[in-house]
Amino acid sequence: MIVIGEKINTIRKNIALAIENRDVEHLQKEAIKQVEAGIDVLDINVGSPFNEEENMKWAVRAIEEVVNIPLCIDSSNPDVIRAGLEVCKDKKTAWANSITLEQKRMGSVLPLVKEYNCPLVALCMDKYGVPTTAEKRVEVARHLMKVVRDWGIDLNNLYLDCLIEPISVGSGKARQTLTTIRMIKDLFPQIKTAVCLSAVSFGLPGRRLINRTFLPLLIEAGVDAVFLDPLDEALMATLRASNALLDKDESCLKYIKAYREGKLNISKEKNDKKGESKSKFSSQ
Amino acid sequence: MIVIGEKINTIRKNIALAIENRDVEHLQKEAIKQVEAGIDVLDINVGSPFNEEENMKWAVRAIEEVVNIPLCIDSSNPDVIRAGLEVCKDKKTAWANSITLEQKRMGSVLPLVKEYNCPLVALCMDKYGVPTTAEKRVEVARHLMKVVRDWGIDLNNLYLDCLIEPISVGSGKARQTLTTIRMIKDLFPQIKTAVCLSAVSFGLPGRRLINRTFLPLLIEAGVDAVFLDPLDEALMATLRASNALLDKDESCLKYIKAYREGKLNISKEKNDKKGESKSKFSSQ
Repeated sequence: MIVIGEKINTIRKNIALAIENRDVEHLQKEAIKQVEAGIDVLDINVGSPFNEEENMKWAVRAIEEVVNIPLCIDSSNPDVIRAGLEVCKDKKTAWANSITLEQKRMGSVLPLVKEYNCPLVALCMDKYGVPTTAEKRVEVARHLMKVVRDWGIDLNNLYLDCLIEPISVGSGKARQTLTTIRMIKDLFPQIKTAVCLSAVSFGLPGRRLINRTFLPLLIEAGVDAVFLDPLDEALMATLRASNALLDKDESCLKYIKAYREGKLNISKEKNDKKGESKSKFSSQ
Repeated sequence: MIVIGEKINTIRKNIALAIENRDVEHLQKEAIKQVEAGIDVLDINVGSPFNEEENMKWAVRAIEEVVNIPLCIDSSNPDVIRAGLEVCKDKKTAWANSITLEQKRMGSVLPLVKEYNCPLVALCMDKYGVPTTAEKRVEVARHLMKVVRDWGIDLNNLYLDCLIEPISVGSGKARQTLTTIRMIKDLFPQIKTAVCLSAVSFGLPGRRLINRTFLPLLIEAGVDAVFLDPLDEALMATLRASNALLDKDESCLKYIKAYREGKLNISKEKNDKKGESKSKFSSQ
């Protein structure tokens, strides 16, 4: 599963300030920390009412000086995606994030994706917003795939965002996303899926607990890429445990290595060792 | 989902000593702690080479003085189950744990279960041991159901243990249990399922991390009862978050209440509050 670091986002005050003040060092530090935490792709979202294109270009250039993993150019404004992709050194590996079924976003982004042959995130929503059932999301997905294919874009580059909504807004929300992922993986095995994890806990206390409890469920459902906070150590530990549980870590070797390197965030857990010796194999 | 406290077990040295020394106070304390942690049923396993029947009777009597939730009489020896059930004050709510397809265990335990009309745990295994595929476990389950029904026992009282094996012994083990649960819930909607959680992490470091990462997967698969360590605060917090995510906690009210009561084990998480204000709803 591809882990995409979400923390370069102007929704965070320090990032908004770093962009505004052209603070190269701060932005680079924020990028490097995430790379060191083990992400595969780094998302950049400089959403702002003014100068978003210029800000994106500046941020991409600043970050590319110190980071050599793929960048994910994240904006609801297709002109900003275009601007970001155009300054990327390696246009083939940079991600375009995102389009929906809205004509304007598609028409502006898809020619570039075709030209660069780069990964593309497409949200399973149309101009009416987030579909209220998994079935409707899959219908949107079907349309998105058709448009993308009609543009001559390799479907292997397509990541369908199955949309996570906060569980605080009503029942069934988490299961809806899991069902959407399963249906898409089942109906269109070639297509990859993505989600933005932290949305699930919006409006609740203990957000990180909710986020990390949802992660194994998403992985088991078959998600291919997750936008998340890689500096959340308990979350990254849960990711490693999930991979060990779900056969994505042969003989649990990576898990054991992470344990030896102190990366499982469990040193502070009282009694963990005791728990190990005490717990029984099973009650059989 | 029914939470069964697993800690009264002579595999733990302090419990073995308390049983040996007839230390009523210690045993009662261990029971009360688990009840206070929020379990629904208390498992009692006094497995030992000698005097297991006498030990079980003594333990049941000692614990019933201070605990008024159902007890789960846990032994691979049917005579011990019989002895434990016979001294229980409330025979209708006490659980018989467990039988397999082995004739001796069934023949000795089922008459009592029929007489008391009490819950029964049946392991999906036969005399050859743990079946190596989910399909074979379901076949054993089918046989177990038939025998139980032929004895005239209410199938609503049957909990099929879908068997958790350690992920350290080979790939596919965790998924096998999930598949078994899903198949049984799908094929026999009337039947309840159970698992003993901590077996999954046997042989690995950071056992509690593995256990709590597996729990949401089991709940999503539909498990009805889980034997676990209720004193593992991070595990119980994960249980509450899982219930909130998977529509087992209307409007997340119990989750929010647990947060307010400091029961989510997140006070020590640095930056959790910060994480809350920083994280975005979604990238849409």
